[in-house]
Amino acid sequence: MENLRVSSTSEPGATAGAIANGIRQHGESQVLVIGPRAVNQAVKAIAVARSYLAASGVDLYFTPSFASVQIESQERTALHFVVRTRHPLTTALPLAATGEEPI
Amino acid sequence: MENLRVSSTSEPGATAGAIANGIRQHGESQVLVIGPRAVNQAVKAIAVARSYLAASGVDLYFTPSFASVQIESQERTALHFVVRTRHPLTTALPLAATGEEPI
Repeated sequence: MENLRVSSTSEPGATAGAIANGIRQHGESQVLVIGPRAVNQAVKAIAVARSYLAASGVDLYFTPSFASVQIESQERTALHFVVRTRHPLTTALPLAATGEEPI
Repeated sequence: MENLRVSSTSEPGATAGAIANGIRQHGESQVLVIGPRAVNQAVKAIAVARSYLAASGVDLYFTPSFASVQIESQERTALHFVVRTRHPLTTALPLAATGEEPI
């Protein structure tokens, strides 16, 4: 599974949709962010994704950790988020069963 | 339990200690942040707190949601984090038993 890259200009609603898609397809989403504004956009997107999925009785949580990434030959410190569902059956969400898009 | 306020100038190590203390005393910590840099500091603090507690076999996760707060008679949108442990026995962490400070 690839990391979802979220930048300072990412739109939280669209990012929330991408996170929700990752959850439906893989049971989790992984997000990589560099810099305060990108972190802020990613956290807001997760808050939005939680509200999308709340109607289905699914909740999301995430665990942040530090990561080192190479950008243009320079080492940068990034934050890596693993977003998971608190619902026990991640592969059988009501959203996936109905085919409805969360956004 | 009071919200821990984290600002753009909060030091992640000290904030991580406060979060870990909340976990030990109440089983969870609640964090309130306004603005991208404060969000970034709080998320970094949670990443640091995870590394403090990892040696005890305890992991932390958190759920972000939007909150409305009044600051100087103005309504501001904040983010509210509930930080919980993935260890099933939050009241009997090894750290609390030994009395060791995580920082």
